[in-house]
Order: sequence, then structure tokens, then C-alpha cells
Amino acid sequence: MRTVDVCLSPDMVHLYEITDRTVVVVDILRATSCMVTAFAHGVEHIVPFANLENCKAMKSHGYVTSGERNGHKVEGFDKGNSPFEYMDGMKGSKLAFTTTNGTEAIDRSSTAREIVIGSFLNLSAVADHLLAGKNNVLILCAGWKGKVNLEDTLFAGALVQKIRDKIVPECDAPLAAAHLFDAAKGDLVGFLANASHVRRLARLNITEDIGFCLTPDQYNVVPVLDSGTLTLKIA
Amino acid sequence: MRTVDVCLSPDMVHLYEITDRTVVVVDILRATSCMVTAFAHGVEHIVPFANLENCKAMKSHGYVTSGERNGHKVEGFDKGNSPFEYMDGMKGSKLAFTTTNGTEAIDRSSTAREIVIGSFLNLSAVADHLLAGKNNVLILCAGWKGKVNLEDTLFAGALVQKIRDKIVPECDAPLAAAHLFDAAKGDLVGFLANASHVRRLARLNITEDIGFCLTPDQYNVVPVLDSGTLTLKIA
Repeated sequence: MRTVDVCLSPDMVHLYEITDRTVVVVDILRATSCMVTAFAHGVEHIVPFANLENCKAMKSHGYVTSGERNGHKVEGFDKGNSPFEYMDGMKGSKLAFTTTNGTEAIDRSSTAREIVIGSFLNLSAVADHLLAGKNNVLILCAGWKGKVNLEDTLFAGALVQKIRDKIVPECDAPLAAAHLFDAAKGDLVGFLANASHVRRLARLNITEDIGFCLTPDQYNVVPVLDSGTLTLKIA
Repeated sequence: MRTVDVCLSPDMVHLYEITDRTVVVVDILRATSCMVTAFAHGVEHIVPFANLENCKAMKSHGYVTSGERNGHKVEGFDKGNSPFEYMDGMKGSKLAFTTTNGTEAIDRSSTAREIVIGSFLNLSAVADHLLAGKNNVLILCAGWKGKVNLEDTLFAGALVQKIRDKIVPECDAPLAAAHLFDAAKGDLVGFLANASHVRRLARLNITEDIGFCLTPDQYNVVPVLDSGTLTLKIA
């Protein structure tokens, strides 16, 4: 029987053997939600960067630069971290992308057998991809500067529930995440209203972003990392 | 307003500023439950050791040696890791104690302003101690070899709920833990039946231990670490 585990923070990823796993990287607010949105709107590929300057340098190579630090767009970058910025003019474009937590999580997963990008927006597509595959699974929550956050944990719980009949939880973190999702699923936005990251973002006036990023199954795409580049796998 | 945060694994404790905090170390199954039981039955003090050999060496200094690795009593040690071993003959004794996760968590908290030992058995006593104090609080779950476990997370949630009117959650982990405790509190043993550590322990035939360790408010004691030694603070 295949198994699924959940790593609630990139600071714990060293505890998991990932060379035989598909790692689902999750940063609901908002990196992976943006990436999924961009692919659904025709972006050709995305190169994720943990380092800001390396990302910025890609502009001279014809890339659209996308960057965020602490929830704010980075000066000199083309785009910030709202999914609504990734709906128009994406077709055939190439993105260089860096965020506070999301690309760091991708960077730390580099030894995984496969890395895919997960968000509520492509929840069922990711679940179908995992079920059709052969690997064990680790859902890696990007969190906030190493700390656990609620929105990524809830997504992990939602994904565990989608696949657990065939890919069973192997430790306590997937059980905890699934229980939390059960408690929250009736009203995700309301459940998250007191969460730290949501309060942080609400101060930036992006309530609309939050509601959108918590909406399941908007897009039927599964971005997969190959040689450092994310490309689209049609689910 | 004072704040409480929850660190779900010792592998994340570096993310928290603890020099101004009371750290509540939690290892429900079973290190901190044993320590609390021992104090309630008259032990004079307990010296926790992360290192097995250092702990063993205390026997020649008149200490009762208590040790567990991977749920099993260590050869040559006087006692294992069941709270029922710490009810008789404790009065005036001194314990040297090492376990897989619990003493490691204590070791990693050494820079805290205050370290106290928490378990369901002394839940209200610890809550009262925190409420009467002046420090911010970090609840540090010992987990299992760095990974998150359900029973320690549930205790963290129970404690957050006891103090949150006066010591408010500062991040998402205390909110997640409190939500989980809400979902579990009607039947803690049932809720934990599928948890990894509980299954691990059930194989060792210690169902009775599990039920006892999940019972709130059996003892009105708060063990506090002072210069590397745990002593009793009457709540």
C-alpha cells in the first residue's frame, strides 16, 4: 500500500526520506496558487528561485519576473503575488518566480523523485495525478518562515482526504491535517479569519485573493518540476 | 497582552525566541506523564538527560535510573516509561531520567526563562501556574523523533484553551492545536486510536498507560527546571 505523509514546515523536511516520493509543494497564500493560475492561463514554463537577485537577473533573458517578500511585491519586478495578476497575457510567456516561502520549499525538495505544485485551485487534478502514479507522497507545506500555518495545513488535509482510500496516512501529521480540514471545510474563509497569515494579508487589502485561493478545483492543471523548471502536465 | 505559541516539534524550536518565555515541555506518551506522576508521589527531584550513558552513570550517585528508547525500557535501568512505575517508593528518591523524545525537548529549551513539565495529568495546575506568571508562553511538543504527533498537539490545544482568555495565541499553530482538541475532547482515546505513537505503544501492550496519560487533572503539581534539575512547585 502506498503512503502519504505531511511535512508541516520546510524546517522539518530533513526528517523525511523523499528520494522515492512525489512531493507536493503547497503555499496557498499565495505562491502555488499564482503558479497554478499562470499555467491555467497559458504560461509556457516557470523557473522558481529561492534567491531574489537570481530571479531578478532573468529579466534580461526574456522572463517575466515575479517576486514577493513578506507579502509585498518586490521593486523592479513585473508582477507580485496575487493570482489575479496571472490571468492575462500569460500565453506563451516564461516566468521567473520567487516568494518568501514557496520557492524555498521547492528548493528544499530537490532530491525528490517528482515535485508537483498543489493548491486548492487544482486540488482534484493533483489528487488524480497522485492516484494515477506509483510513488509514495509527501505533502510539503511552505508555512511562514519555517512556522506552521493553517491554510497550507488545511490544503494538506483536503488532499489526504481525496487520496487516503488508496494512499494511506503513514504518521500523525496527515491525520491531524485531515481532522482540521473536516472542522473547516464548511467555511474555509471563516475558519481562517483568525489565522496569522490571513490577518497579515488582510492588512494588505487582499481579501479577494484569499477567497479565490481557497476555492477548490478551478483549474485542471498539474505543474511538475523537471530539471529546475516547472512545466504543465495536463491532468 | 501576553501571548502563547505552540512549537509542534523540537526540530522547529530554533524558530522561536524563548529567552523571555516559559516553555512548557510536553511528551504525553510518556515521559512528562511519568515525571508528573513521580512528583505527585513524592520524588525529591529529577535530573533529565538527553544522553543515555550520562543518565546510567547517575546510578553510582544514589539515583534511581529511568530510561526508555523507542518505547522499551533500557537494559540496566531501574525503571521504564510507564507512569504506574512511578507511584510506589518514590518518596524522597532522586531520579535520573532519559527518553527518546522528552528529555531531548528539555535539552533544546535550555535558554528559556523558565521550563515547566506539562501533561494531561497536571493540565489545570500548569494552566494556573502560567496564568499566575508574567511570561509569554511556548508549548513545546516533544513529538516522535522530530515529527509531529497527535497526543502532544492535543495537549497543546487543551492548554491553549485553558489560558487563551488572558494569554492569547500569537500564530497559527496554537489555533490549529485548539481546533484539534475541540474535535477530540469528547473521546481522546478514540480520537487517538489511529495515531502512530498510540499504535506503536499498543503493540507493547500498554493500553492502560495510554488511558491514564490522557486523563486530565489527576495531580496538582508543576515540575520546574532549575539549574538542570526538576523540582516540584506546589501549584
